[in-house]
Amino acid sequence: MSDTPLAIGIDFGGTSVKAGVVFRGNIIDHAPPISTQDFDSPDALIEAIARVVEDLCARHTGVAALGVGMPGFVDFEKGVVYNLTNVRGWEMIPLKVRLEALTKLPVVVDNDANCMAYAEWKRGVGRGYRHLVCLTLGTGVGGGIIANGQMVRGARHGAGEVGQTSIDFRGRRGHYGNLGALEDYIGNNEIAAAASEAYHAAGIHKSAADCSPVALATAAHGGDPIALAIWDDVAEKLACTVMNCCWLLNPEAVVIGGGVARAGDLIFGPLTSHLYAQLSGPFKDHLMILPARFGNEAGMIGAAAMALEAAGFPPEP
Amino acid sequence: MSDTPLAIGIDFGGTSVKAGVVFRGNIIDHAPPISTQDFDSPDALIEAIARVVEDLCARHTGVAALGVGMPGFVDFEKGVVYNLTNVRGWEMIPLKVRLEALTKLPVVVDNDANCMAYAEWKRGVGRGYRHLVCLTLGTGVGGGIIANGQMVRGARHGAGEVGQTSIDFRGRRGHYGNLGALEDYIGNNEIAAAASEAYHAAGIHKSAADCSPVALATAAHGGDPIALAIWDDVAEKLACTVMNCCWLLNPEAVVIGGGVARAGDLIFGPLTSHLYAQLSGPFKDHLMILPARFGNEAGMIGAAAMALEAAGFPPEP
Repeated sequence: MSDTPLAIGIDFGGTSVKAGVVFRGNIIDHAPPISTQDFDSPDALIEAIARVVEDLCARHTGVAALGVGMPGFVDFEKGVVYNLTNVRGWEMIPLKVRLEALTKLPVVVDNDANCMAYAEWKRGVGRGYRHLVCLTLGTGVGGGIIANGQMVRGARHGAGEVGQTSIDFRGRRGHYGNLGALEDYIGNNEIAAAASEAYHAAGIHKSAADCSPVALATAAHGGDPIALAIWDDVAEKLACTVMNCCWLLNPEAVVIGGGVARAGDLIFGPLTSHLYAQLSGPFKDHLMILPARFGNEAGMIGAAAMALEAAGFPPEP
Repeated sequence: MSDTPLAIGIDFGGTSVKAGVVFRGNIIDHAPPISTQDFDSPDALIEAIARVVEDLCARHTGVAALGVGMPGFVDFEKGVVYNLTNVRGWEMIPLKVRLEALTKLPVVVDNDANCMAYAEWKRGVGRGYRHLVCLTLGTGVGGGIIANGQMVRGARHGAGEVGQTSIDFRGRRGHYGNLGALEDYIGNNEIAAAASEAYHAAGIHKSAADCSPVALATAAHGGDPIALAIWDDVAEKLACTVMNCCWLLNPEAVVIGGGVARAGDLIFGPLTSHLYAQLSGPFKDHLMILPARFGNEAGMIGAAAMALEAAGFPPEP
């Protein structure tokens, strides 16, 4: 047992629930993933999660807290999950209370994008910053905001929904009725659809797989002009939202992660030039645009760090 | 002399500098305004301001602090004015240090929109909220943000530039190179230009005065369809930016003030409907959209309140 306690971080996804034991920002043990579809009710799934936690605690002494990142709106204070878009039956579930009763650990429940932001802020490339915006680009576009050295959760714990903000006041109508949401242009599927359309218009046949962000990154690195144009387009739209965050929050750094961000320089190059052309001095001088350190494990690492701090353990060295 | 100390608030505008003695959010004495154009150098103007402060202090015992709201970027911690767009020679002026030396009062210097936001937060319709966004609509569009019960100023004290955020990623190019800035659509002059164009297109002759926001409000209240369409258009664009603030910050309330906001229901009606159609539950339930309490005096009241708190006096009852 060490001075720095262990925590368990859980990344609750639309298809599987992953759990890991975290020590100073490193996952030192993984539980086998649970498939969310194997369980008919939230109760049954919560009990399965609790058993996984028990197994991990049995293998590691000194687990002091449990953090859970959820793919939906969460009342952070009460630990109640309002609803999940992709998992049946999850409405107004008091997850924190249920898990605390079953595991006897102090539990924190937050939105998954907040957990990722927390991971980067406490253990990743955002460490030490007091004013930080984190974005995660995947099927959806999520985010988390740190201002004055604190996580900004807002009135109902919904803050940081970067992907729902608009880049076009008369743009596409999104899931919540919002017009021009960034997510509706640069989510995984929207990038693939734009690429498919561009290839088709050029008379080039491409499969769906050829239009995935990963395939488009490979094509662009090989000099494919259509793929390059797609990434520039993604960067231009992303720059609009990042710029808005900068004018509003004047962060020291913007951290960008998630699958789409793995396109690397294809995004970060044009993003930076579109962005810097649209900011004045105090907003761009010293501004850092940083690729995230963590990939798929960010949610677990962030949830674990958040749980330890909420349980009264000081930030790890 | 009372238990609650007095403070002097200064509203430094592009054409004049106004100063008032503030007691619990009320201006109990005004100094005659100083014309900024009467002074060749920042030094001369600063000395004139100090004389005005001395005069006010001579008339009121118990003045404990001095707050100044500036129309430009300010380093809040150091009290240095980076630059003013509309007043010659104001670049890197250590206003706080200069005024403290001349007046012997503790001085706070901040951006004017932050002062207005502070006034509404501490003494106006935003009182008691921990998560608040304030906008001020005039020639420019400014703002201030409160999150977790603290003013958000950001890395270089620039946060809250709501008017510079984009509503259209390929929109008009603004002062800082930014595309689609809200201010470039709904600033006073832009509203007047849009109205002038709409009347002209309809074959109706209108003078420039007929196209001012005040005249357009009168015309719209009289049923003029072109004026009504202009206000709906302003509200639609404003809704985009307010919506973005809500998704990002999930505030309890949004306070809207400034000259343009005096159009009242002409703006607040369509703004609310455009806005609520584009937000999900946790972002719109309980969300308050509030007309500001203070008009032209907001800057003085906010600067004074900020100065008192910075000088260690607890928030007034």
